[in-house]
Amino acid sequence: MCESRGAAQMELGSSWNAGSVAAVLPAGGSGERLGAARPKQFCALQGRPLVSHTACALERISWISDIIVVVSLEHIETMKSIIQKYGHKRITVVEGGVTRHRSIFNGLKIFAENKLQKPEVVIIHDAVRPFVEEDILLKVVKAAKDHGCNDYDLDYGTECLHLALKYCKTKAKLIEGSPDLWKVTYKRDLYAAESIIKDNLSQQVCIITDMKEDAVQVGFLLHETLKSHIQQVRRISVSLYKDDNYMQNIILGQCFNFICIRVNKSAFQETQQLVDILENANISTLYPVVLILVHLNVSENTSFSSEMEDLTRIKEFAREVKKKNILVYGLLIHYNKDDPQLQETVNSAATIISALIKDRNPELIGQLLVA
Amino acid sequence: MCESRGAAQMELGSSWNAGSVAAVLPAGGSGERLGAARPKQFCALQGRPLVSHTACALERISWISDIIVVVSLEHIETMKSIIQKYGHKRITVVEGGVTRHRSIFNGLKIFAENKLQKPEVVIIHDAVRPFVEEDILLKVVKAAKDHGCNDYDLDYGTECLHLALKYCKTKAKLIEGSPDLWKVTYKRDLYAAESIIKDNLSQQVCIITDMKEDAVQVGFLLHETLKSHIQQVRRISVSLYKDDNYMQNIILGQCFNFICIRVNKSAFQETQQLVDILENANISTLYPVVLILVHLNVSENTSFSSEMEDLTRIKEFAREVKKKNILVYGLLIHYNKDDPQLQETVNSAATIISALIKDRNPELIGQLLVA
Repeated sequence: MCESRGAAQMELGSSWNAGSVAAVLPAGGSGERLGAARPKQFCALQGRPLVSHTACALERISWISDIIVVVSLEHIETMKSIIQKYGHKRITVVEGGVTRHRSIFNGLKIFAENKLQKPEVVIIHDAVRPFVEEDILLKVVKAAKDHGCNDYDLDYGTECLHLALKYCKTKAKLIEGSPDLWKVTYKRDLYAAESIIKDNLSQQVCIITDMKEDAVQVGFLLHETLKSHIQQVRRISVSLYKDDNYMQNIILGQCFNFICIRVNKSAFQETQQLVDILENANISTLYPVVLILVHLNVSENTSFSSEMEDLTRIKEFAREVKKKNILVYGLLIHYNKDDPQLQETVNSAATIISALIKDRNPELIGQLLVA
Repeated sequence: MCESRGAAQMELGSSWNAGSVAAVLPAGGSGERLGAARPKQFCALQGRPLVSHTACALERISWISDIIVVVSLEHIETMKSIIQKYGHKRITVVEGGVTRHRSIFNGLKIFAENKLQKPEVVIIHDAVRPFVEEDILLKVVKAAKDHGCNDYDLDYGTECLHLALKYCKTKAKLIEGSPDLWKVTYKRDLYAAESIIKDNLSQQVCIITDMKEDAVQVGFLLHETLKSHIQQVRRISVSLYKDDNYMQNIILGQCFNFICIRVNKSAFQETQQLVDILENANISTLYPVVLILVHLNVSENTSFSSEMEDLTRIKEFAREVKKKNILVYGLLIHYNKDDPQLQETVNSAATIISALIKDRNPELIGQLLVA
């Protein structure tokens, strides 16, 4: 058995091949120190339970064949509905024991009973450590093959290492984890995890412009300006998102933010097409997607009542689309290509867009902001 | 010497009286683990350096007479300008040494050299633990009098306790701190601290209504509805905030959020009066204050251009007031007292208000949202 801060594995066989690794996630804690109504592994981060985030992190790793989540009896149905709702694959739910070690034992029994194919290495990973990366798990798995147990580990390792020696007569090695592996224990950790997830979701944005010259120009200016706020900014023409492959690539590249720029303000039909594409790609199942509708106002003669009508339509549209976990905001840009203040307006638009993407505030959907 | 997780004190005399306590804050760390451009004690939380938040937490405690902040030579001027900018009292800046212990020693030397009155107890408190409460410090100070040093503390306490015995022949005792005493070490800790501070700032709101019947009614409805979002909601008439004592009490009660409801949309003059009161009370020096201007639109006949003019004025006003660390947002409520949807509109307004207060987003100031 090898244990890192947060990730341990057990050598079940004498030789190890890639593809023969499973993971057991103890998720039976009561979360007393958190002070929340429910155990921390079921607390929501961006609307989704913590345990689902951790499960996703392990599912992303192709060489982990099976993931066993061990929960207390009362939470088995909750866990099953989480698997259903968020489309988890390769997860088996197992009832826990009265202690963490009994729970891990119950998880391992699944393999002994031949209910699942016996792996050569099993990674034990706390369900409340959502930010685990492939490289650290690979180190842990390799260490399971390469290292033996030494006195230092027994003196300073965690209790699992003691048990491994006492009962299993197996080899053990302590692997240093990264700071990202930290465990969600207190309420402040939930806050931190929420901010880290929001940060990760704000790294990419895709600007979609309609074919009109004004939209293309604002798209270009916004692209240039947003680069100083957001790591990766793409810009495509509206005709391209009808090319399924193109959009699929962007979505597969983990882009969760879209900006649609159009001169014709009431283009809800085209926006609906984008929403359908996002929905079909299942992208908003796991994280809320931000969709900012930028209206270019090229005339000063719009009446207030027509403006209010538009606002009402955005609100209704946003409320409807929110059910699919897509957050829609409106942004009005007064546009005149000869305006010497144009760059200033674009700067203001970029700042507002960046704030909306970074905050992902579900309570401000359907609002029409002004750059 | 006594040490808790994050708070230690040294017994300098043989008997202790309340009022004879000082604090030394080592603030010389380089913050390498944080991965930020500047040391973590100078990273901004709600726009203010972490070390200033910690200093405030200690300044709130009346029985701590002097606070010595120990920083490296290159940060002495930075620290002095922080003291100036945020109006800290009772703080002396001292140059640190090459290690944490030498820095603490330099802090203590100030008393030995009779530059400040010698206290009977000195609390050593990390500058990067911003959430320290009076009760735990009181326990630490009391323990400095009551307890002796035992073998358990020497074996399992932190290195300070070892030094205390070895060099000072003084008594030592380990005090268990609360989880809130945690140390800001990684970037995730800054995220958590930021969220905790925002949470603390969102506990109270004061609704100020003008004298018109419609404003009073909406004020009443908002009061009732906001109670389920925010812990403490007060409501006063606009005439009252001209009573200095009344407003002073609210401000002294740590209220950082104000909602002004008025039927006459362009009442910037009255709003300016409120801004002046807040400014004179120095309330926004330490934390950003949220000020939401609620406009009741009782007519459908407003022209778009007059609406845009108003929006421009809010934006300009907000930009001006932002310099005083006051964040102004506009909120439009279409009001008709016989509207069967009125409560729904008020619910929407309360949700938006609560989101604005909890987010305190400086990039969305001057926007006119619609309930």
